[in-house]
Amino acid sequence: MSDRAEAAVRVIEGSLRKRGRLRDSHITLAHGSGGKAMRDLIEDVFVGSFDNPALAALEDQAVVALSELASHGDRLAFTTDTFVVNPLFFPGGDIGTLAVAGTVNDLAVSGAKPLFLSCGIVMEEGLPVEALRRVVASMKRTAEQAGVYIVTGDTKVVERGAADKLFINTAGIGVVPEGISISARNARPGDAVIVSGYLGDHGTAILVARNELALETQIASDCQPLNGLVETMLRACPDLHCLRDATRGGVATVLNEFAQSSGVTIRVREAALPLRQEVKGACEILGLDPLYLANEGKLVAVVPAEAAQRVLAAMRAHPAGEHAAVIGEVTGEQAGVVVLQTVFGGERIIDMLVGEQLPRIC
Amino acid sequence: MSDRAEAAVRVIEGSLRKRGRLRDSHITLAHGSGGKAMRDLIEDVFVGSFDNPALAALEDQAVVALSELASHGDRLAFTTDTFVVNPLFFPGGDIGTLAVAGTVNDLAVSGAKPLFLSCGIVMEEGLPVEALRRVVASMKRTAEQAGVYIVTGDTKVVERGAADKLFINTAGIGVVPEGISISARNARPGDAVIVSGYLGDHGTAILVARNELALETQIASDCQPLNGLVETMLRACPDLHCLRDATRGGVATVLNEFAQSSGVTIRVREAALPLRQEVKGACEILGLDPLYLANEGKLVAVVPAEAAQRVLAAMRAHPAGEHAAVIGEVTGEQAGVVVLQTVFGGERIIDMLVGEQLPRIC
Repeated sequence: MSDRAEAAVRVIEGSLRKRGRLRDSHITLAHGSGGKAMRDLIEDVFVGSFDNPALAALEDQAVVALSELASHGDRLAFTTDTFVVNPLFFPGGDIGTLAVAGTVNDLAVSGAKPLFLSCGIVMEEGLPVEALRRVVASMKRTAEQAGVYIVTGDTKVVERGAADKLFINTAGIGVVPEGISISARNARPGDAVIVSGYLGDHGTAILVARNELALETQIASDCQPLNGLVETMLRACPDLHCLRDATRGGVATVLNEFAQSSGVTIRVREAALPLRQEVKGACEILGLDPLYLANEGKLVAVVPAEAAQRVLAAMRAHPAGEHAAVIGEVTGEQAGVVVLQTVFGGERIIDMLVGEQLPRIC
Repeated sequence: MSDRAEAAVRVIEGSLRKRGRLRDSHITLAHGSGGKAMRDLIEDVFVGSFDNPALAALEDQAVVALSELASHGDRLAFTTDTFVVNPLFFPGGDIGTLAVAGTVNDLAVSGAKPLFLSCGIVMEEGLPVEALRRVVASMKRTAEQAGVYIVTGDTKVVERGAADKLFINTAGIGVVPEGISISARNARPGDAVIVSGYLGDHGTAILVARNELALETQIASDCQPLNGLVETMLRACPDLHCLRDATRGGVATVLNEFAQSSGVTIRVREAALPLRQEVKGACEILGLDPLYLANEGKLVAVVPAEAAQRVLAAMRAHPAGEHAAVIGEVTGEQAGVVVLQTVFGGERIIDMLVGEQLPRIC
């Protein structure tokens, strides 16, 4: 074949390829090479799913007008999170759901409207392409639910044994509306502390999925985007003081961060913690403290006392907040202390998590 | 000890801790727990190195005024890249240099001024803390060189054997100045094709570092930020047509992307390719094609013919472009074709990389 004829055949294949499917059943090192196999993978699995103009251009970066961003507020929020959860699939979600919801939530708790995500994937050679497709479909679904676009990405493949199946990093960009100022430093004595629902569902679901529990439970991960809930809360009270999603380290770690950053004491009533019976049971059997269990769709808010009932009512009217509860309040006793008032009437200090409770929970 | 006394001791430790050093010699699963050990690691190794106000606040997201971004241009550029290079340390750089320079370069080739990076790290249990410190020091140095800030991050630890030592994802934000419009779709017949210097240094350096070459060479990776060079080029010619750094897949892959996206032929003269003797030698011995070797501090530019000598002169006056050369030109013969005119007077089609040349090159 002459060079010309060869080239013509290739170009026709090229344009067909965009509409076709990747034929490989498993990921190989070639899918991370920067060459043809990688381009096929990206065009089929990613561009085909995340369909949006920025990604389809396949430049090495996505570009968006600052004027468009400015229509949402006056400050850019930027965050990142890597997901290494084991197993990849669990009741209530998978690593893809987690990778989108996690970064959306890190943006949302700054008060930002999440807009764009990046997606960096590390795959182990031999990963079934069908597993990747399932994960990407979850990312797409969760991104739609949150109203964000995945606009730029990168894929790497490492040899068998150099990574455990699949890791996903997402970074996110959002815009904070004017006048919103949420920070871990803003808790004031008198403020109310609210959680948005049942605690510990994600941590328990992962334990069950790993068969580390000798229990039959129906617990599903609470993995979900929280930006809609946060918008509702901000409409009820634009002056939310602190907001953070309670992921690794659980509610206890978030409360300690608030108490330390704001120089206050936070008092929590054990009886007020929203806990499912199954989670309570699992914690009792395994000696785990639900305050340290990971959540992937729950937030902790510190709000002015006068707004507490208004915010709570707004949260309960939202699907992501129906089981929201006031769990305690802020006092000025001491800087950096979290105190639990137990159901037996005693008190104990709730410290930050020491050591590791459950590795690879997210 | 009463609760009060215990709390007071902890708070004093807390404030000392920020100025102290992490005492562990190796990374453990606790350093990824979301709890105290992770906070110690982040405060000591990361915040201590990347020192900037956004990161020091230790919120889950960095926030920057849109008005500040608007002072640099009218469009936001957003990109991401994950680095899994093996080995972590090699002549000329390490995974940290690469992680900063790589993302800076992906922004720079859109014409954007790179401003902020995120950093998502996956560590294998048992990684020596000193290795992490060295990598973080390289990230800091490269970020300073490029004039960017690392403003937000995340660390995960996986159990021994679930990852190979250390993977780093960086996402980056930059701003594109008004009037700049660089795209792989902009190559026009008559345009000149320029590369910014010697090709294949990074790929060869990694091969040598892996002891896969039975050669004694002094080749160091070309790993470096290119945003300064791009600024110089844009001053010489604001109308640069295409620009891309030639990483995985090498110059051949970039030229194919330009040819396909622009619907043109690109003709390259083999004799004009800037190649070090050592790289040429290694390629001949191993049967590698230098056009496919990875670079980590080289770019390919397509510029209007009338501007070619002006751009070339500007590049050669910059340390990152002293060996820049015009290597070919764009023609309208056929869409999506790259042709090499060999030193023997023949012609051959240069396709995108098929299969995998060197896994984990970046």
